[in-house]
Amino acid sequence: MSAAVMSRRDLQFLLFEWLDVVSLTGHPYFAEHSAETFNGLLEVCESLAADYFAPHNRLSDEHEPRIGEDGKVVLPDEVAAAVAAFAKADLIAAQFDESLGGMQLPLSVFQACMAWFQAANTATTGYLFLTIAAANLLQAHGSPKQVGEWVRPMLAGELFGTMCLSEPDAGSSLADVSTRAVRAEDGTYRVTGTKMWISAGDHELGNILHLVLARTGGPGVKGLSLVAVPKVLTDGRRNELALVGLNHKMGARGTTNTLLAFDGAVGHLIGEENRGLQYMFHMMNEARIGVGLVAAALGQAGYRKSLEYATVRMQGGATLVEHPDVRRMLLAQKSYVEGSSALVLRCAHLVDRQRTGEDTSLLLDILTPVAKSWPSQWCLEANSLAIQVHGGYGYSREFDVEQHYRDNRLNPIHEGTHGIQALDLLGRKVVMRDGAAFRAFTAAARQTLARAAELDEFAAPLGRLLERLERVTALITEPEHAAVGRANATAYLEAFGHVVLAWTWLDLVIAAHGKDGPFYDGKRAAARYFYRYELPAAHAKLDLLAGHDRTTLDLDPQSL
Amino acid sequence: MSAAVMSRRDLQFLLFEWLDVVSLTGHPYFAEHSAETFNGLLEVCESLAADYFAPHNRLSDEHEPRIGEDGKVVLPDEVAAAVAAFAKADLIAAQFDESLGGMQLPLSVFQACMAWFQAANTATTGYLFLTIAAANLLQAHGSPKQVGEWVRPMLAGELFGTMCLSEPDAGSSLADVSTRAVRAEDGTYRVTGTKMWISAGDHELGNILHLVLARTGGPGVKGLSLVAVPKVLTDGRRNELALVGLNHKMGARGTTNTLLAFDGAVGHLIGEENRGLQYMFHMMNEARIGVGLVAAALGQAGYRKSLEYATVRMQGGATLVEHPDVRRMLLAQKSYVEGSSALVLRCAHLVDRQRTGEDTSLLLDILTPVAKSWPSQWCLEANSLAIQVHGGYGYSREFDVEQHYRDNRLNPIHEGTHGIQALDLLGRKVVMRDGAAFRAFTAAARQTLARAAELDEFAAPLGRLLERLERVTALITEPEHAAVGRANATAYLEAFGHVVLAWTWLDLVIAAHGKDGPFYDGKRAAARYFYRYELPAAHAKLDLLAGHDRTTLDLDPQSL
Repeated sequence: MSAAVMSRRDLQFLLFEWLDVVSLTGHPYFAEHSAETFNGLLEVCESLAADYFAPHNRLSDEHEPRIGEDGKVVLPDEVAAAVAAFAKADLIAAQFDESLGGMQLPLSVFQACMAWFQAANTATTGYLFLTIAAANLLQAHGSPKQVGEWVRPMLAGELFGTMCLSEPDAGSSLADVSTRAVRAEDGTYRVTGTKMWISAGDHELGNILHLVLARTGGPGVKGLSLVAVPKVLTDGRRNELALVGLNHKMGARGTTNTLLAFDGAVGHLIGEENRGLQYMFHMMNEARIGVGLVAAALGQAGYRKSLEYATVRMQGGATLVEHPDVRRMLLAQKSYVEGSSALVLRCAHLVDRQRTGEDTSLLLDILTPVAKSWPSQWCLEANSLAIQVHGGYGYSREFDVEQHYRDNRLNPIHEGTHGIQALDLLGRKVVMRDGAAFRAFTAAARQTLARAAELDEFAAPLGRLLERLERVTALITEPEHAAVGRANATAYLEAFGHVVLAWTWLDLVIAAHGKDGPFYDGKRAAARYFYRYELPAAHAKLDLLAGHDRTTLDLDPQSL
Repeated sequence: MSAAVMSRRDLQFLLFEWLDVVSLTGHPYFAEHSAETFNGLLEVCESLAADYFAPHNRLSDEHEPRIGEDGKVVLPDEVAAAVAAFAKADLIAAQFDESLGGMQLPLSVFQACMAWFQAANTATTGYLFLTIAAANLLQAHGSPKQVGEWVRPMLAGELFGTMCLSEPDAGSSLADVSTRAVRAEDGTYRVTGTKMWISAGDHELGNILHLVLARTGGPGVKGLSLVAVPKVLTDGRRNELALVGLNHKMGARGTTNTLLAFDGAVGHLIGEENRGLQYMFHMMNEARIGVGLVAAALGQAGYRKSLEYATVRMQGGATLVEHPDVRRMLLAQKSYVEGSSALVLRCAHLVDRQRTGEDTSLLLDILTPVAKSWPSQWCLEANSLAIQVHGGYGYSREFDVEQHYRDNRLNPIHEGTHGIQALDLLGRKVVMRDGAAFRAFTAAARQTLARAAELDEFAAPLGRLLERLERVTALITEPEHAAVGRANATAYLEAFGHVVLAWTWLDLVIAAHGKDGPFYDGKRAAARYFYRYELPAAHAKLDLLAGHDRTTLDLDPQSL
């Protein structure tokens, strides 16, 4: 299929007409950039994604990583070529400081760049995504020596990163991490334990630096430190860590997923002892926004492909798109995936605005669990609709959409499950600083409402919903209701998510206001679809929450 | 994994405590049966499913059918052994007349039997399911000679059936079928054309009889006839039909799915010319109920397995099931899959009651699109929750649940897509005979409400919803609103489906009323979950419908 995996026009709308990323260049940190450099880079990414990533997307699903006779992981050759092309275009370094050889590209623009690669081939892009995340963490918390030794080769595409958090018996509960790191006389550490679900945990693309969450102190999350463990030591010897096995997944098959055994491996402490989780969480916002971006990009790919299919495929004497129910399935996808893309880029833009000195951290904090969970849930649904538009063809592996659906099913699981995002939102972000982050959100939404005088079709229902959300939030966070509130945290996450998306869509409609043509009409139609077909579900969830429903809290597991 | 794929206790509850299938034995047609024979057969099925079907469920997913060097389709040996064991237990014949060597088993009991096999291995069961459906059609519409020649060997497991409807360019739009059947001088037909997505379309389990929808008359569905085309002719020669290729699917991989080319193949007319679609539709109710059963059974399998996992897996110092959000995911699955099982068995029971002389056809007609679509949608969601309960393990192919999810994704597509079910419900069933089928449903629901005096928690919301459904249905079927109503037919299907499930759950709660213990408490909890967490969404959809929303109808495809 020759369909584009993303809409260039949509990315330009989001970046330039909506977020106005060019205004960032007024700040010294981004001053080297301009609309031209942004657009130029986006075009490069579109080309690279089409030339180096999309062509082997199915191949690396069908020929998933395996362990060769020499014990080394075998990937299709196309993976290394794609990674090299990405690195050669300086894209690994793009968002980093010039002092490290980076471009100081705004994260919002960089995420739009990444969207092309994630949509084209999320499995291969995974190696790069994880390396960028690791470099980012090291840049923030590593010593100057560590930055020099590791970040520079990472940005050059010579060293690859992983995040080693989960263990066979510790997934969502990081307090249970049992991998230990013991300080040796020379100041390095010896790491012993087993890490599970480690993406990109082994391959031959280059040396690997594992960022390992390991216990240096007592029990609980406070005894965890972050230790960097190279696969191959500087003297060329293999470190004491072994690939125990490859996990075989439903999707995202092209990214190696590994069970790793550390057996006294030499590691280097990042920052201070017992602050490992804090460092990880420092990077978690960006990692979670990144997961939201992957979900949105896969949603985009499925949407573009099913739209193209519906435009050419005849059925019952008409093209598919002429059937109203097919238009519904396409418009639903559009509302999910374009809304998700907007939310993710907005979050990245909040990071950029921090760069320019603005304090956007409260809003970013509260939006992050939504930016991770909402696209993961609804762009998966979009992929399901993309299959449905294709009919039987969509269920066959001759077409791409079934792979997007399988690939996307990962996103509600990793980097904090859906349920963990819900607890993060309601148990942490909503109540933090006496509700300051929550108020940052409602204030931002009200700013949008204040600019929506001529758009009462959207402003009125959003206004009502915001007020309800405030009342219900106050109600369920009262101490006597907190336990039942937490039991229904997922309902809260999903209701809150819908409100965030409704705000996002109104904001997009404002950016399209007074502009004519099918593109802008499409924005209005997708917003209308979202408000009319999807948003009312948020009220139902708020009803449930307001009733302090104890159905799940009180359920006797014996009756299941 | 050793988890049971179904709940024997639940099937017994549905059959004996709720539907009271034993009372069917008061009718001469079922008089040979008793609770003992029903239970005995269910136990046989449970054993056979565990011994012959479950063990190769993953194997036949990993080793999907291929074309061997001799051009023949290769399946794992276990498939033939399972099919033989099923046939040897006389299960293919179970629901057929004694005159054909059958057991005259009630369809409701037979569907409960099939649930074991579908949950254990839907791909292998597919060969049997299609053969039973074909035999059923032939029994109803074939000549005595055809019944003797084909139905008997089918029931013996020596001849296998297919349904050949779709073509590469005709999926949902059967009016576009272009395969032709031309009558020869000897009264047989010559069939020429290409059929796509033909499940079980080729294999070496035995000879195959294809029931082919082919054009004998003019354009449209009225020119279609049903022609039986054997793969191998009675003289042992291969008929003029070729396996062009195998389709490779996301799931349900163990069932061959084929592209078949008929090139003047010898066929035999079933019944009369130009009534082919009518014959197919005659069987469609049972086939669609059968699809609902597959969806429900796969939902059951995922539910049982994730429940077992949640009971033993520790996380954060507690078993998973001790976490309220995990209980929510299990209870949601329970409400979807047990509700779906009940709906499907009720529909089968309506067929049984027809056997005993009762006219249940109106209720059956209107429930069928729901029995097909609702389990296909919500038991897929159940499988997604089963994955989520497993965390990363659920996304790995080391566990079963990801396969159930992939297998189940077929069900909203085949035997009439989700959108086709919606048009069938709103465009045909609701308006047929001046709304008689719709009234048959509301009358049945009101009978249940009349027995729910002590269950106001459920009766009150269901009563309100029924009244709204009646008002909205009247509104959107008015001639001036019919076009926009049809454009929103899927919203109607989904709202109507929720009302049907709410009725089903209330009926189940009535059957459990006054009974103590965890099993019955579980029924009440699942019903409560459904009413509180899910049912309100139906109101939102009815709002949309009542507003005659034109968003999708008026959408300009250019703006997508």
